[in-house]
Amino acid sequence: MTVTGGLSVQDSGTTRMAREIAEQPEALRRTIDALLPLRDALADLFTAPDGTLRHVLFAARGTSDNAAVYGRYLLEAYSGLTAALAAPSIATHYSSGLPTSRPDLSRALLVSLSQSGATEEIVATQQWGTSRGARTVAVANQANSPLTRNSGMPLMTQAGEELAVPATKSYSAQLVAMVVLAIAACDAGGNRERGDVLATTLERVPAGVTTLLNDQHGVQDAVETLLKSPTTVAVGRGLMLGTALEAGLKIEETCLRPVRSYSYADMRHGPVAAVGKDAAALVFAAPDGPLLPAMRELAEDLSSRGAVVIGFGGDARFAERCAVHVPAGDLPEPLAPLASIIPAQLAVERLSRTLGLDPDSPQGLNKVTLTDR
Amino acid sequence: MTVTGGLSVQDSGTTRMAREIAEQPEALRRTIDALLPLRDALADLFTAPDGTLRHVLFAARGTSDNAAVYGRYLLEAYSGLTAALAAPSIATHYSSGLPTSRPDLSRALLVSLSQSGATEEIVATQQWGTSRGARTVAVANQANSPLTRNSGMPLMTQAGEELAVPATKSYSAQLVAMVVLAIAACDAGGNRERGDVLATTLERVPAGVTTLLNDQHGVQDAVETLLKSPTTVAVGRGLMLGTALEAGLKIEETCLRPVRSYSYADMRHGPVAAVGKDAAALVFAAPDGPLLPAMRELAEDLSSRGAVVIGFGGDARFAERCAVHVPAGDLPEPLAPLASIIPAQLAVERLSRTLGLDPDSPQGLNKVTLTDR
Repeated sequence: MTVTGGLSVQDSGTTRMAREIAEQPEALRRTIDALLPLRDALADLFTAPDGTLRHVLFAARGTSDNAAVYGRYLLEAYSGLTAALAAPSIATHYSSGLPTSRPDLSRALLVSLSQSGATEEIVATQQWGTSRGARTVAVANQANSPLTRNSGMPLMTQAGEELAVPATKSYSAQLVAMVVLAIAACDAGGNRERGDVLATTLERVPAGVTTLLNDQHGVQDAVETLLKSPTTVAVGRGLMLGTALEAGLKIEETCLRPVRSYSYADMRHGPVAAVGKDAAALVFAAPDGPLLPAMRELAEDLSSRGAVVIGFGGDARFAERCAVHVPAGDLPEPLAPLASIIPAQLAVERLSRTLGLDPDSPQGLNKVTLTDR
Repeated sequence: MTVTGGLSVQDSGTTRMAREIAEQPEALRRTIDALLPLRDALADLFTAPDGTLRHVLFAARGTSDNAAVYGRYLLEAYSGLTAALAAPSIATHYSSGLPTSRPDLSRALLVSLSQSGATEEIVATQQWGTSRGARTVAVANQANSPLTRNSGMPLMTQAGEELAVPATKSYSAQLVAMVVLAIAACDAGGNRERGDVLATTLERVPAGVTTLLNDQHGVQDAVETLLKSPTTVAVGRGLMLGTALEAGLKIEETCLRPVRSYSYADMRHGPVAAVGKDAAALVFAAPDGPLLPAMRELAEDLSSRGAVVIGFGGDARFAERCAVHVPAGDLPEPLAPLASIIPAQLAVERLSRTLGLDPDSPQGLNKVTLTDR
């Protein structure tokens, strides 16, 4: 036991989650080294038989779904493709009502994500995609899984075995896979220079993550603010939306606290009315990019409504508008999510211990989630 | 003032929201009569120049976004197209970083939804879609709006003027527009009989809504349960997901109470751990269809975790598993959302008044939401 900021907590060295968070620089390095060489082979997959770029469909659940949200925005905003998240129930429950030729996915690339590679409904969604003509890519961390065995191209993340129930290093490794997909999509679209910029920046990620793990600026303040706040919201936008969703999910599953997670615009369209004076608002911003001014305004608006804003990332002007500011490095917007999630993971693990919970095995959850099939 | 169930509340006849809820049978009738004749013209829009069916992209925010979620599932599950929700920030904030030819939307049909037809970022998204080659359809309730003036085909809903800030009759009228789109998509896909089944069932909707408005079974029980519950979740799946999201949004904006809204599967992947003993869980089910067994199990699971389940719709076996059951008519799953939202609207309006709020003008919201552009 150690005492931090007046609170008695378990030693962070005792949890698997803390160790797996700390392993991320190596996990990311190994994953970059394994996946970046697949760039050219992947680029071929993006091109449909008629020479146009395929439409990308992501299939994932839970944490993997949050990685897919990032992948979707990155492919659309940076590589200029159309991308969307598949609704697995269309494959698993509704497809029997339709002819086997529907929908026509011959111009689609279906990208499945699952840490285990065994999430049953994602495996079923991949089978459905293949049977409707889609090319497939499977992103998984465990070797020799049903998902990777049956995919057109497996992208094996190299996070190593993940034992804590809350995914951390497997999530950031999935983000690397999303970046490699976006690089290949730039290549396929005839803009290799744009892909090169992303590839060069990707090489900076492990060192940036190491710095955040060492510094931990603002993390304890964030934990203490969350402890005092009866309600919590998490907000992001565009490329940072997936990070907000993932931080919110991690608090729910690891700290057993309800969190409402929103995109900036969805929040503005109604839910902002129900952000009370007692709420902690986690606001995720990139250090640059076209959405930063909107995130500054949101931090100010939420503060004016009485919420305690805990800002992750952004720039100095964003930080000024937050009651608590947690730096998240200087990676440019397209790659900022690979850094911004790190201090959020650190805060969640510490909050869980401070609440007297075991972050490795939150109640009521298993590592592989079973839905009704 | 009148006294209902021991609670002193404003008379429902005094609010615009109550009157607009009650006007829905006529609003739906007028909208069906206006839009169903456009079936053949719409079917032509679904076919790309090479004879394949277009990919459908919806653009909407807030309540309209919840209507789009229904439209997305209906087109995918019933008509066999691929459909997805556009991320407006791709159009409004990220497009300047890409060549004007990207993404290529020449095989897309962009369907915009906005009650006013003037939501600025949706108008901008439609312009972006047109400039990238998409055909466009605009669903709006107010005549002569920027959205309808510039669309390939306007679908004018006939809800009449909506004065209360929380959308009710304009939402259900948007759902009618989604059904007409799905009918036309069936036609375009060569399955006119399937379209005919949907069209025949659509004609039953106004009478079904009238019955629900008259009966109001379970509505007061739902209100009293919500009053006693400090936290609220709303859950749906597939075709019923949009209804759960809309009920959750309506409680947030009209009753100023936080609600966490989930799809069944997203909830299972983590957030279910944070559903406490004190939570009210609104669970929306169709009376039939492939997802009903899963929704029965979910109601049972949430009850076993100590939540008070308020079930809307479903069948008798679903109702047995709910602490409070609110009947929602017998429309088959594809059209069940047009009925299920009715008792939820009634409960929200009554809950707002019971809390001493004015459902017509919840604090902090305007009828037309301004985001940062």
